Amino acid sequence: MTDEIPAKDRVAIIGVGQTAFGEQWDRSIRRISLTAATACLADAGVSGDDIDGLYVSNTSTSSFIQQEHQAVMAADSGGLLPIASTEVEAACASGGVAIRHAYLAIKSGEHKVVMVIGCEKMSDISEPAIADTLMSAADREWEGQIGATFPALFALLARRHMHNYGTTEAQLAVPSVKAHANAVDNPYAQFRFKITTEQVLRSPIVSDPLHVLNCAPISDGAAAAILCRGDLVNKFEGDPIWIDASTQASDTLAIHDRPAITTFRAVKSAAKQAYDKLAMKPEDVEIAELHDSFSIGEIISVEDLGFVEKGKGGKAIEDGVFDKKGSIPVSVSGGLKAKGHPVGATGIAQIAEIVEQLRGTAGKRQVKGVKRGLTLNLGGTGSTAVVHILNRE
Amino acid sequence: MTDEIPAKDRVAIIGVGQTAFGEQWDRSIRRISLTAATACLADAGVSGDDIDGLYVSNTSTSSFIQQEHQAVMAADSGGLLPIASTEVEAACASGGVAIRHAYLAIKSGEHKVVMVIGCEKMSDISEPAIADTLMSAADREWEGQIGATFPALFALLARRHMHNYGTTEAQLAVPSVKAHANAVDNPYAQFRFKITTEQVLRSPIVSDPLHVLNCAPISDGAAAAILCRGDLVNKFEGDPIWIDASTQASDTLAIHDRPAITTFRAVKSAAKQAYDKLAMKPEDVEIAELHDSFSIGEIISVEDLGFVEKGKGGKAIEDGVFDKKGSIPVSVSGGLKAKGHPVGATGIAQIAEIVEQLRGTAGKRQVKGVKRGLTLNLGGTGSTAVVHILNRE
Repeated sequence: MTDEIPAKDRVAIIGVGQTAFGEQWDRSIRRISLTAATACLADAGVSGDDIDGLYVSNTSTSSFIQQEHQAVMAADSGGLLPIASTEVEAACASGGVAIRHAYLAIKSGEHKVVMVIGCEKMSDISEPAIADTLMSAADREWEGQIGATFPALFALLARRHMHNYGTTEAQLAVPSVKAHANAVDNPYAQFRFKITTEQVLRSPIVSDPLHVLNCAPISDGAAAAILCRGDLVNKFEGDPIWIDASTQASDTLAIHDRPAITTFRAVKSAAKQAYDKLAMKPEDVEIAELHDSFSIGEIISVEDLGFVEKGKGGKAIEDGVFDKKGSIPVSVSGGLKAKGHPVGATGIAQIAEIVEQLRGTAGKRQVKGVKRGLTLNLGGTGSTAVVHILNRE
Repeated sequence: MTDEIPAKDRVAIIGVGQTAFGEQWDRSIRRISLTAATACLADAGVSGDDIDGLYVSNTSTSSFIQQEHQAVMAADSGGLLPIASTEVEAACASGGVAIRHAYLAIKSGEHKVVMVIGCEKMSDISEPAIADTLMSAADREWEGQIGATFPALFALLARRHMHNYGTTEAQLAVPSVKAHANAVDNPYAQFRFKITTEQVLRSPIVSDPLHVLNCAPISDGAAAAILCRGDLVNKFEGDPIWIDASTQASDTLAIHDRPAITTFRAVKSAAKQAYDKLAMKPEDVEIAELHDSFSIGEIISVEDLGFVEKGKGGKAIEDGVFDKKGSIPVSVSGGLKAKGHPVGATGIAQIAEIVEQLRGTAGKRQVKGVKRGLTLNLGGTGSTAVVHILNRE
């Protein structure tokens, strides 16, 4: 279908860049953000003068580092003034939403080459303060006030999934084991070591049935991408990867308002929009980066994306369907669990991984011959979902 | 020029709605936001089912009310799920930036009818905490750490403007006097009473030379607008007002990094982009809503928008050029000073005022026969500027 669309009406990603994810006590958010942006400019072969729009994604920076207006800060420290610079916030989906808005800005005809930077500095405040701040992304009045945290909310989803579909604690461990195995080959990953199912199951319980090793870590880091109008890609060195679909949907903020908590309706809606637009089926996806902030999130997501039937996610993951050598490799980067999860950067790091994979430049992580990839970035307890379908051609 | 553009490539505002601005102790942000949204839907003659995109603007909500993910909350409480909903943050310019992104979303071809809601609940925390939170929009490391607050930063601008151009304290008082006089006729305004120059000059000093009556208040409130693709406006009842230009620019976060602090370079850049696009001159603007969070802001803005020469702003305002009966009526709504300044709502309330004025439905505030209006929404100390040019036809 995309063959019929003139290049000027398409949008490509012509460069990506990242910092390593992890605790970065020695660097400010300015420095972290600039490091990813500089790597991205080099990758794209683009100079600051070529860029006519900037999006920055992060969340709760007024609480994490007492600094809002991050889009201007990045434009300023990056020497991009007087560029139009906008910060978007959609909790953990901020990065995906920012990519989508760069895409829309180019499609609008008002921008040509747009940079997106996602960054987060989470480790500057105490762990209880981090947990409290993150709850700003759930429903504070109805969920936060009764003491729920994100692990507690996802634990409810996990427990119900186990009840409805027979998903086991051992199956819940698999996304984490897979993520750590994949992260070994990712120089940007926070945890480059393998873990076993036994280690997951013996690790401390955070919120039953979720162990600490079912949960993504607190991370600092940044990721960046440069998007370009399709007819201009030849002006730059960066190998273009095309955005065929960029879709976004929302669900209730509080999980008690949903008819079922074992389905992410926003994922189903965003995925359906993308598949319908491209007249494609879920099985046409050749590689994916999914949102495993908690391992139950990956299980529900492979179901709601249509990769497997509802209820079969745990079994399929256990059977290796989503391993690096499986039928749809999922989160070869190491995912949020092992690559790290600096909230605002996550969605852009997912894009960066798929871009590298489709280009064939993912080094030891490379999955051979993949042409079409999907990213799914979630915010809150599945309250925001952003899907991107990227294509090598 | 706009006559030549096909309707499907234009974007119109087909509805606006607001709450009164002020301290709203008895209402949650959900309620405030929904009140403006409902009024806006009624004004546009649009139902929730017609809307396919939502933007929400606010700032620092993780600090003000410990609730981020506001776009989803508004979509959820407004019954708009599974709509794509995005929060944008650009300090006090958040509202203008949200309008611009709804405009871009429609121009991209991926959306048709988009709602924008700006809301802020500032009064739930203590005044020192408010001042500290607002400083998240300036440069925390370089300005906040030495104890500067926004009144202090704008006071530096005012003092330098007085030094360079002979602007007087009496001239600095005029925007406030004018704003209060205008607000008397605005049912949405926080302060519906007149003040005199003497009262401004006798009011307590906040940061020399700025008195408390040179500064906009802390406010709660919301404003909303619905934007629609040009060829679809006849489907709805709302009287369309057209967006001819929507431009945005950035300047340094910290004022010490600027070659001069008596000029807002972002305003000059955004205004030039808009004027150039429409082949118009500043004097073609018939009515404007400007960003008088501090009265020096209005003086600098009328200069940088090209309404008067640099340095002549104070005198021109004193001479009544920008009075309701002057050559370019400015902030007939009462402006931020007297209408109120719930940060995320402000830019959308400015749009709402110009829409009412161009429609001819502004009641006692109506300026006769105006066809073309401008809004200028600023973030930080002029670090973000968003300009909109609206047209009756």
